[in-house]
Formats: sequence, structure tokens, C-alpha cells
Amino acid sequence: MTLLHFRTRTIFALAMFVGASASPLRADEGMFPMSELGRIDLAAHGIRLTAEELFNPAAVSLVDGICRVNGCTGSFVSPDGLIITNHHCAYDAIQKASTPENDLLANGFHAGSREREIPAPDYQVRITESYRDVSAEVLAAVQPAASQPALTGLDRAKAIERRRKELELAAEEENPGLRAEVAEMFAGKTYVLFLYTWLKDVRLVFAPPSSIGNFGGEVDNWEWPRHTGDFSFMRVYTAPDGSAATYDAANVPYHPKRVIAVNPNGVVENDAVFLLGYPGRTVRHRTASFVQYERDVRLPRMVSSGQRQIEVMAAMGADDRAVELKHSSRIKSLANVEKRGRGQLQGIRRADIEERRLAEEAALAEALAAEPEKRSEYLNLLIEIEAVYHEMSAAAPFEMGLDQLRTAVRAGAFGWFVVDARHERAKENDLDREAPFMDRNFEQTRKANEVAMADWHGPTDEVMLLDALFALLKVREARELEGLQEILANPASIPEKATSLIRTTRLGEAAFVAECLVMDEKDFGGVNDPLLRLVSTLAPRWREIRELEKRREGHLAQLYGRLIELKQEAQTADFVPDANATLRLTFGRVRSYSPADGMIKTPITTLEGVIEKTTGTDPFITPQGVIDQFQKRNFGPFALADSGRLPVAILYDTDTTGGNSGSPVLDGDGRLVGVNFDRCFEATINDFAWNDAYSRSIGVDIRYVLWITGIVYSANDLLAEMGVSAATGDSPK
Amino acid sequence: MTLLHFRTRTIFALAMFVGASASPLRADEGMFPMSELGRIDLAAHGIRLTAEELFNPAAVSLVDGICRVNGCTGSFVSPDGLIITNHHCAYDAIQKASTPENDLLANGFHAGSREREIPAPDYQVRITESYRDVSAEVLAAVQPAASQPALTGLDRAKAIERRRKELELAAEEENPGLRAEVAEMFAGKTYVLFLYTWLKDVRLVFAPPSSIGNFGGEVDNWEWPRHTGDFSFMRVYTAPDGSAATYDAANVPYHPKRVIAVNPNGVVENDAVFLLGYPGRTVRHRTASFVQYERDVRLPRMVSSGQRQIEVMAAMGADDRAVELKHSSRIKSLANVEKRGRGQLQGIRRADIEERRLAEEAALAEALAAEPEKRSEYLNLLIEIEAVYHEMSAAAPFEMGLDQLRTAVRAGAFGWFVVDARHERAKENDLDREAPFMDRNFEQTRKANEVAMADWHGPTDEVMLLDALFALLKVREARELEGLQEILANPASIPEKATSLIRTTRLGEAAFVAECLVMDEKDFGGVNDPLLRLVSTLAPRWREIRELEKRREGHLAQLYGRLIELKQEAQTADFVPDANATLRLTFGRVRSYSPADGMIKTPITTLEGVIEKTTGTDPFITPQGVIDQFQKRNFGPFALADSGRLPVAILYDTDTTGGNSGSPVLDGDGRLVGVNFDRCFEATINDFAWNDAYSRSIGVDIRYVLWITGIVYSANDLLAEMGVSAATGDSPK
Repeated sequence: MTLLHFRTRTIFALAMFVGASASPLRADEGMFPMSELGRIDLAAHGIRLTAEELFNPAAVSLVDGICRVNGCTGSFVSPDGLIITNHHCAYDAIQKASTPENDLLANGFHAGSREREIPAPDYQVRITESYRDVSAEVLAAVQPAASQPALTGLDRAKAIERRRKELELAAEEENPGLRAEVAEMFAGKTYVLFLYTWLKDVRLVFAPPSSIGNFGGEVDNWEWPRHTGDFSFMRVYTAPDGSAATYDAANVPYHPKRVIAVNPNGVVENDAVFLLGYPGRTVRHRTASFVQYERDVRLPRMVSSGQRQIEVMAAMGADDRAVELKHSSRIKSLANVEKRGRGQLQGIRRADIEERRLAEEAALAEALAAEPEKRSEYLNLLIEIEAVYHEMSAAAPFEMGLDQLRTAVRAGAFGWFVVDARHERAKENDLDREAPFMDRNFEQTRKANEVAMADWHGPTDEVMLLDALFALLKVREARELEGLQEILANPASIPEKATSLIRTTRLGEAAFVAECLVMDEKDFGGVNDPLLRLVSTLAPRWREIRELEKRREGHLAQLYGRLIELKQEAQTADFVPDANATLRLTFGRVRSYSPADGMIKTPITTLEGVIEKTTGTDPFITPQGVIDQFQKRNFGPFALADSGRLPVAILYDTDTTGGNSGSPVLDGDGRLVGVNFDRCFEATINDFAWNDAYSRSIGVDIRYVLWITGIVYSANDLLAEMGVSAATGDSPK
Repeated sequence: MTLLHFRTRTIFALAMFVGASASPLRADEGMFPMSELGRIDLAAHGIRLTAEELFNPAAVSLVDGICRVNGCTGSFVSPDGLIITNHHCAYDAIQKASTPENDLLANGFHAGSREREIPAPDYQVRITESYRDVSAEVLAAVQPAASQPALTGLDRAKAIERRRKELELAAEEENPGLRAEVAEMFAGKTYVLFLYTWLKDVRLVFAPPSSIGNFGGEVDNWEWPRHTGDFSFMRVYTAPDGSAATYDAANVPYHPKRVIAVNPNGVVENDAVFLLGYPGRTVRHRTASFVQYERDVRLPRMVSSGQRQIEVMAAMGADDRAVELKHSSRIKSLANVEKRGRGQLQGIRRADIEERRLAEEAALAEALAAEPEKRSEYLNLLIEIEAVYHEMSAAAPFEMGLDQLRTAVRAGAFGWFVVDARHERAKENDLDREAPFMDRNFEQTRKANEVAMADWHGPTDEVMLLDALFALLKVREARELEGLQEILANPASIPEKATSLIRTTRLGEAAFVAECLVMDEKDFGGVNDPLLRLVSTLAPRWREIRELEKRREGHLAQLYGRLIELKQEAQTADFVPDANATLRLTFGRVRSYSPADGMIKTPITTLEGVIEKTTGTDPFITPQGVIDQFQKRNFGPFALADSGRLPVAILYDTDTTGGNSGSPVLDGDGRLVGVNFDRCFEATINDFAWNDAYSRSIGVDIRYVLWITGIVYSANDLLAEMGVSAATGDSPK
């Protein structure tokens, strides 16, 4: 794109959106890092706690009761390490413990005693202990002596990555037993080192049946009004001495420093709430050219690939509950991402995201009019960034197509794990290894692969491989690639070859994969497994692409780092960094919204809605126990004061994204009133921009949690552990 | 069904719905005939007019400003016969005046002067002048001298039909120039003779483009929130002496006795409104067995046949605007009925209509416990009624299948008109003729057929005939029927035969049809037109079925008449008769509703919603003129006081059904604040039962009408004629 083109485009955009672009920052948006709590007028937002009561690395504070549970958030609700999180966050654990004979997804689970709690070996729990800004230390790695040129692209990315690893290892050495992670707050600019308590013995305590925990399924996912009891209880254990340990029968419950009190009286409309959690990733500081790339390239590909994979897996499991169970977790996660992608594609258009970014960019160029050099640097930055996205767009059919062979094709994923692990582990210096294969991570990576292998289903992979190969057939680079050349040469024989590759491979067998990891080079070279051979042949190209991606990332990070600086200089307001899976606080209130003219969605749903939606057909089945208690109107102390109805889910305008799943919804006193689990469809656009009219998040109401647990399933042990009585609802805390 | 079965069934139902069945009558439901206005506490419902001011046959009253426009309702809004009704009510006229070169559907129409108004030859306008109960006179026909047995079934139906015709003819003789119609109020029980002024020169004055008048099309039809400008203006003319006459250039505008004043300030939420109109048909006094017949037989067949016909016509018009125009009116009307059918199928389930009727029936049986004879008579009535519906269900594949040949197949319809007209017109006594062929109706029937023929499209009929024949192939009686026997004998040759029948017929030619009507028997017998021959061969069977339907109707009318009597004896409350296309009043207020837990639909939509929905793709296109005025926010005096937005449509809880299309929505002073055009999806169930939570009707807001007409399309002549100024909104009335 020429500069002239850019100017024309932005001037056009400016003309259209000049009103909207006046202030790119909005007062209400914000996933605040702990470092920014001091900036917030907490009382004005209904929070009756001080910043220190919320977070204080020097003493016990509220965040000591919050944890990260794999990719989700959880809250400690008892002194004995009882965690409440979402049903969908515990889903993997529930699924892995289910068999056709003992189907915990279908029937739910209540341990009833410590001994009967079920280990979830691929779960870890982290608790944020402290953080420290390490930007200077990280960036020193890319600012060499004055005589030398600054590092760029891949070299820069690698240097930063290496320095981050060094800092993490040093911090872990300094703080034995803790986990260190350096997070990038502003790409290429700000880095913070977090220290975490890291626990590895997590067990399943209670889960409602999926018909409650996933009521509405994919139909209602990303939708409001919602009627899903998306919660579960887990428990964390440590070695008897209190140190982190993997599962052992002799382990003892973890005692958190802080317990989150449960408020069994819940909230009403307009009540203030706040959330603590680990939101994963937002892209609010990216350029218009990034939005174009997402809209035109990445999201459409992701959506169509997701839809196809779901279709295949659903068909394979249609008549076989065992196969259905194997696929259920993967389908759920793909469907989730696919629908979010669709929502974002819609939101980018509806919320004029591209136009607004263009307008912001034009406005900043305008603001820099008095400083021609800066202005020119700024415009050049935009053009350089756009060039990277153009390169990615052009490469997408080949790179993303090749990627399907090691993601959609699960045996391909296991093979790539073997080949990559052998390659990385062979390196002498641990710091030279890709992160998942470093000493501190390898055991976990290996275990995650093993857990995934348990769900392998060959016939599904045959179709996935065939799909992936047919897609690559259209790409010249793929047709000329060693390994694929022969397979793609004769399209008519592809189905036969795909079938044969999957049927002859042993990559679905845990023992074979374990063996492959420890073979010497000669033995490994002699293994007669055509799919493993294909993966080995493709591996160098995959590594090249990984390097290429790092180079692009490094380049983008550098460009964005400078872009942010220019923006900060031109504007007075502070920025809140994009979400990056570090601990954040966000506040708001229980609040309705209008998704369209003539329609209002109200913020508290009730059990009446569950009954209304119930058709008896999945995903709208309701257990008889719920119907019985509904008919008796046996709501214990948990009904709404005004209508006498039982609340099910709540809606609020806090700023959340993925990773906030399981986040506690807290009242002004920091007591638990709900468990966050989703956003409304219009709020899928949160990742690109927060929106006062549409950004609404969804939580299961604590009163529904307590009613299902205590009254429908009589798990009074858990209510007692949380200090709640189903008879009176009183909480002694 | 045995009596035992019936009892078991009703006792089960009673147990489930005993609460719901306590009072089968609801205070708020009601499409009140003029005879019942005295019963209503008008002031309590916000109506600041007396019953006499509403309707008074002895003087001028509000209803003199209301008319029936074909199957719709209209209001006189000027002393020169200007009528406002719906766009969809004028649709036939707009469509028939459209050509690919001058497409009034696409572009809209504004006459601008009397001379340029376009005649709509198949439109008539009726004004209710008076009514008289003639029940005794009608029923005397079926209660012969004491020595003879009472008439039953077909004889009874025919005797009543004949007596009704006699009364109508006598009344027309007595009141020259007026039209008389005897309406059945309670089947088999109550009959009322209505006298109407009947005008036949109706012309199109103004219509917005379909993109406004049908904004949202089939997607939004039967839905709220709604953003459709569904209105148009027509004008009625009479001969210079004021008598009714068909179109003549010398005709003069009709001067209505009463003009409905326009209130350009409209309404706000919770304001009282009332409607006057001609609701077509409700079935609230029918039995549970009727509901079963509708749910299991008639509605599913109607829905699937409608869907198929729409599909075929849409495909045929996809690449040819001329064909598309020919089909548009028929598609619109089929789609409307099809979606209503789907809504009713859903509503019967959701609103538990069958169970409620069963419970009501059980409750009445219970109430009659002290009178065993009456109780036994009542149960026998229910069983006899059910037997009729069982017979209809069993006969449906044959009868409804055969019907497709003269409804879905348009050339079949024209042929059936020819054959039936020749047969009926040959009868000597006018009273023996079927109503459409009586002297007083025949000219209109002939013209309607001619107008329909203008839209004939052979290739569409080839598919329709093929579909109809294939459906009949499954029915033994059809395979054995003379005329069809040969065609259906060899399934493989059906496509060829269907094609040939349509391609060789001249039944699409108006001249040929006209000729056929006047030929003598011998010449007609010698016409070489295989489709006409087929129709002639089938005609006796169609006549038999018509007789059969009358017999069933007569039987049901007798049974229902007695059933209503037993109900009235057992209950104190009065009944409101089912809608029957006679003038009714219904009242309510502008009111939101909750279609589901967690959602509220608010009762006034705005132009913002039109813009939101606009995608640029049919049916969500918005004319540039609307967008321009929106961007300038040039709403004249018509914006809402609170938000400054322009209202588009309003929602209210009055009790309406089909035929209320075009009904004036009137404020408490009887001034026009909207034009009724639809119901929300949940309210399709109105025909079976009114429901406080779901029964909501939809009108276009008078402010949107005035804005579109006066400001967007500058038709200030019309605003002036209505006494409204677009500059101030003042109405001098």
C-alpha cells in the first residue's frame, strides 16, 4: 500500500467517524492490572474495599482467595482448598473420569467424602503472589552497545524470549517452590515478572449433570437470556508438608491464605459488582490493518475449519456414546471458538471497528500535524505493520493449511509432539529449547499429550487428514513440498493414502509414543510408521514457519512498542494494557441492555426460564429432580424477594474476555454472588473494543449454585464447608 | 373413540389443568360486536366516547368513518373519500399497476392529483350501516311442523343457507343500493343481518416503496420488534349522483358521513387505544377434538404445501423480474398463512391449547354432574363432534390432495371456475346457485378470476401440477378416480403428462375463458383442451366434496349450537361470538411484553431500528431519501418528546385477528394514532385463545406515516387533506 492510498483511506474514515474518534479511550473500559488499582476510585464504583484490601503482596488480601485453574479462574471458598469454578472449566476432568457405564457428564458427580474425590491429573492451580516491572531488564537485551546496530525481527524476538526465560529461572531460584512468569504488558515495551504459587494435585469434588452445567449447549452459548448452571467444585491438595506435589493419596488439602466469603443473598439489578480473574487476550491496541487481517483472513478460516471439524466429530459420535464422549471436550472447545469468531466477524461490522481504528489513526496523524517528522514516522509505522499483515494474509493458505495436519489431525499432533520433543530435548542448553520442552515444563507437556491421546479416534482422523490434504491440493507450495509432493500428485489416490496413513500409524498408542521419545537416532530412523515419517519430513518446514512467526511477532512487537509510545506522547490519558492472562480487576453493575431497537434483555433470569426452554431434547433437558423441586417451589432461602422466583443467571457490564471463565462475581464487600462463565453474543467484540451498550458478561447466580448443590443434590457437606445453610441461607461469615 | 376413552382423557387433563380451567372466559379478551358495546365500561378502558358516539345506526357515529376494504379494514381520513389502510392491503392494486418499466412496488407511488390516481378494479369498499338479529327467522327454516322430524346434516345446512340468501335478497330489495349479508354469530344458533353501503370504484393514491411498506418482508412478518411502514392511501369514488358504480372517469369522490381525525402527536407507552375493524375468523368456541384436527392434520398440510408452492414460485422468478412480479402477491399471501400456521402449531403446544380445552370440557362435564341427562347429552355431543373431525382427518389425503389441482395449479383453478360457472349459471332459480354465481355476485367473481389470470405463468403451473399428481399417487381413491386413473397408472409418464397438460391448455387466456362461459353445451363438449377436459371429468367429484363439506358443516353447526346452549346454561358469564368478518371493537393499551424469561419487548420502535436492520439486501433495504432525512434528523414535528427519535411502529394488547389489517388504532378520543397491520409471533395463537401475556398486535405509528408521506416523499397534498401540517404537526380538527 502506498502512503497516498493510506492517506486517502484515513481521510475518508476520518470524515465518517470524526465524532466517534474524538477520544479513543473510554472511561468505563478496563481490565486493570494490580499495579493500576490505585488509579481507580473504588468507592465511586460501589467497591467498599481499599486497593490494599484487594491486593497486597506484603499481607493477606482478597486476591489470595483467587486462583488460576488451567486457562480459567477459580475462587477458594473454604479453608480446605475447595475451589468453585465453571462446569466448563472442569469439563476435561469430568469427561476423562467418565465411561459409558459411569457417565459423570450425564449424571453429575458428588464425591461426598475426601476419599471419593477424583484426581484431575492435567489440572494445575496458580495463585498470584507478587509482581515486579522488569521492562528495563528485558529491553536491555535488545539495546546493545552504542557501536552496534539495534537488533531487529527474529534476532530481537529471540533475544527477548531468552531474556524472559533467564529472568524466570533466576526468580524461581530465588523463590524456591514458586513459579515465575514474565508477561508482556505492552508489546515490545513493558514486561512484568509475576510470581505464583503453583499447585498440581487438583481433584473433582462436585459437578451437576451436563444438562444443568451446560444447559442450552451450543445453542445458548454466547447468548443471553441464559439458564445454565455452569459451576463445579474442585479441591487442591499439597504434600503433607504444604509443598506443591502431584497426586498422592497421602496428600492433604491446601489451606489458602484467604477464603472468599459466599453471600447467599445475591444481588439485584443495578447492584455494583467486580470481578477478579485472568483474562486471556485482547487486541485493543492493534491497528486497522490487523482488524482487516482478522476479518478477511484469520477469523473466516478459523470459523470454517471449526465448523467442518465439529461436523465430522459429531457424525462419528452420533451412534456411539463412547466415541461421542471422546470427542465431546474437543467439540465443545471448537464450537466455543467458532461461535465467538462468528460473533466477532459480526461485531467488527456492526461496531464499525475497522472504521473506528482508521479514524483513530487519522486523528493521531492529525494531532501530529505540527511535528512533521513524528507524523511521518507514525505513518510509516502504520504502513510497516500493514505490510506484515499483508505477508501473513498471502501466506495463510499454505501456513494455515499445513497447520491443519498437526492440529485437526490428532495423530499428526501426537507425531509432531514426538518429533519436536526429540529435537528440542536434544539441545544442550535448556534456554535454547522451546518453552514447552524446557525442563521446568516438559513433564507437563508430556502429560497433556498423553491425556489428549486417550481421546484418539482413528476413523475421525481419517476424515480430518483427507480434508487437510484436499485443502492443500489447491496450494502450489504444498504440492511442491517434500513429503506432500507424492501424496498430492495424484488426487484420485488421496483418500486411499489418507486412510492408509491413519490405519497403519501407532501414534495413537501411549506406549509407542513414550518409546519414541527415548529411542536413539538410529532406532527412531528405523521405525516403520508412514505417518510418523511424513511428520518427520514436514517437521523442518513447521520449524521454519515457527521461526517465521517469531520473526513477524518480533517485528510487530517492535513496531507496536514504538506506536504505543507515539500514542502516549500525543494523548494525556493512560492506557490499560491488553489482557495477557495476568491477574486483572474489572468493575461494573448488574445491568440490562438493548440488543436492538424495541428489545430489552433484563439482567436476572429465573428457573421459570429453564422450564420454558426445556423440550426434553438435548441441549434442553432438565433433570427430574429440578422439575420436582420447581413444582414444589422448594427454593429454600434462595428465591428473589420481589417475585418469589429462583434466580439462575446474572448479567453485568464488567469488562471480561476468555480466561475470566470461573471468575468470582463479587459484591461491593468482596463476597461471592456469582461465577462468571460467558458474555452475550454482542460482547464477543470485547476482544477488539469494550462497548457501553453491548459489553455484558454472564455469571451463574450464587443462589442457583447453592440451590442445585444443597437442595436438588443434597450436597450439604459443601454448603456447610462454605458456611451456608440451605435451611436459612445464613452465612456466618 | 369410546366414551370410556374420553372420560379417561378428560380426567387426566382435568388433573393437570384444574387451575387453568376454573374460568374459561377471560375478562380482557374480546372482539365485541356493536350489539355488545353497552356491556363495556368504556371509561374504565380509557375510551372517552359513549357507546352511541361509537355506533349509532340512527345518527352519524364513529363507525361511519370505518370501512371494509376487500378482506381488510380502512379509515376515511378526509371528506373526499381518502382511505388509509395497509400497504399489504393495497398490495394487489400496486402489483397489478406495476410493470418492469414502471415498478410501483419498487418505487412507490404518489398520484399528486385526482386524475393520476390508479383504478383498482378488484377492490370494493363496504361501510356498516345497520344490523338486525335474524336468528329466529333463519332457524325457523330447520324447525318444521311438529309432525315432521327436524332437519339434519346436509338438508339442514342447505335450508339455512337458502334462508340466509332469501333474507339478504329481501333486505336488498327493501333497501335499494345497500348490500345485505347474514352473518352467523354462534354456529347453528345466532344470525345477524348486516346492511352495508357497497362502493366499487376504488383508486390508488399513495404507496411507499415496498422497501418501506414491506420492510423486513417475510423475515419480520409476524415478529416484533417491527420497523415496517405498512400503510397506503386509496380513494373511493361514486357515480356523480352519489350511487355506487364501477370505475368511470366521470365518477366523483365519495363523501363519507364521518371522517376519522388524525392525531399527529401519537401515543406513549400505557396509553389506552381501541380498534374498530372486521376481524375474519376465530375458533375459540371449538372443541379439543377440533384443536387436534388442526394440529395434526390441517395446519401441517397447509404449512408444507405453502412452503413448497413458495419455493417453486421463488425459483421461477429468481432471474426474471416480470415473473417475480406475477408471483409476488401470491407468494406474499401464502407466506403469510404458512408462517401463521407455524406460529399456531407452536402456540397450540406452548399455550397448552388442547389441554386447556380438554380441561374446560371436563370441568363442564363436572358442573353437570347433578343433571345426569344433560351431562350425558353433553358428552355425546363432544363425541359426535370428534367423529366429524375424525372423518375429515381420514379423508384429508384424498380431499386436500384433489383440492391442490384447483388451487395450487392456477390453470386448474381457472378451469374449475369455467366448469363450475357453467353448471351453476345453468340453474334456473338464482337461490339454488352457489353464492359466487348468484346474480348479485357473479360479475365480481368473473372479474376476480380475470384479474388472477393476468398473473398466470405456465412453467410454474407445470411444476405445481406435477407436485399435485405425485401427491395423489399415494392415495388409492385418487388412483381409481376417473380422469386421474390413466394419468397415475404409469408414474414414469406423469412428468411428461403434466407438462403436456399445461402447455396445451388455453385456460390462461382471458378470451378463451370468456368464450367458454357463453358456449352452448355441444360446442363446449367439443373444445379440444385436455386440461379443461380433465377438470370437467373431476368436476362432479369436486361438487360431491363440496356437498360433503356442507353436510359436515351443517352437522357441526347443529352440534356446536347445542353445545353453546349447554355451556351458557351452566355458566353465568356471557360469550363473545367468534370473529366472522363483521364489525368489532377491541380495546387495550400500548404495552410491552416478555416473550421469554430475561427478555422484554418494548412497545414503540424507532427509525434507529430501521437503520440498524438495514443491510442493503432485500428485505432490509432502506431508500436513500429515508437515510438522508435520518442523517439530518429532519423529523419535523413527529419525533418522540423524550428521546427525540422518530417512532415507527407501536405494540398494544388489543384482541385482533386477520381482517383487522388496516384497522385504525384510535386514542381515547377516537383519533387515529396508528394503522394496525400484524400481530407478534406468539399472538398467532389469538385465533384459538386470547392470552394476556402474549397477545400483542402491531401497528404503524401515525407519526411515521405522516413523516414518510409528508417529509420523505413531500406528499403535502395528502397531509393537507387530512388537516395535518408537516411543519408543526398541528391538526386543526
